[in-house]
Amino acid sequence: MNPTNIGIVAGTLTSIAAIPQVIKTLKTRHAKDISIWQPLLLAVGVTLWMVYGILIHDLPLILANITPLACNGILCGLKIYYDRISA
Amino acid sequence: MNPTNIGIVAGTLTSIAAIPQVIKTLKTRHAKDISIWQPLLLAVGVTLWMVYGILIHDLPLILANITPLACNGILCGLKIYYDRISA
Repeated sequence: MNPTNIGIVAGTLTSIAAIPQVIKTLKTRHAKDISIWQPLLLAVGVTLWMVYGILIHDLPLILANITPLACNGILCGLKIYYDRISA
Repeated sequence: MNPTNIGIVAGTLTSIAAIPQVIKTLKTRHAKDISIWQPLLLAVGVTLWMVYGILIHDLPLILANITPLACNGILCGLKIYYDRISA
């Protein structure tokens, strides 16, 4: 397997990693065990990755961060919402 | 702020993002709300990022993935362990 293909698989896995957590949290409607800091740091971090991608004109870098930004943004909202209604 | 500095901040935030979750899970000894898939996909994904970094001789890429690999590997273990003892 050449380096580019390994990079593509790596990027795909890290991009989709938060999807199962969003699905699980929506199903259980419970997020007490989740630290708000992980989705928050990831949301801010991937936003800066996108800014960096825009500044250096790197389209794959911009595209790869759309899914994690959406997922981690949603997770921050779900964490705050479910903690509040289950408090 | 130049693109390189934005990239460094982005990389630092996404690298350290899983640390608070490891600390929280160790403190609460409870991981029911966490999907095993997120740390598992991230652990495999960042391992492949490191392999990619090694193949293209990119030291920052290798170094940036050490912390997430350690954290997400630990989280997989904690998730399995605490789910088993609290079952």
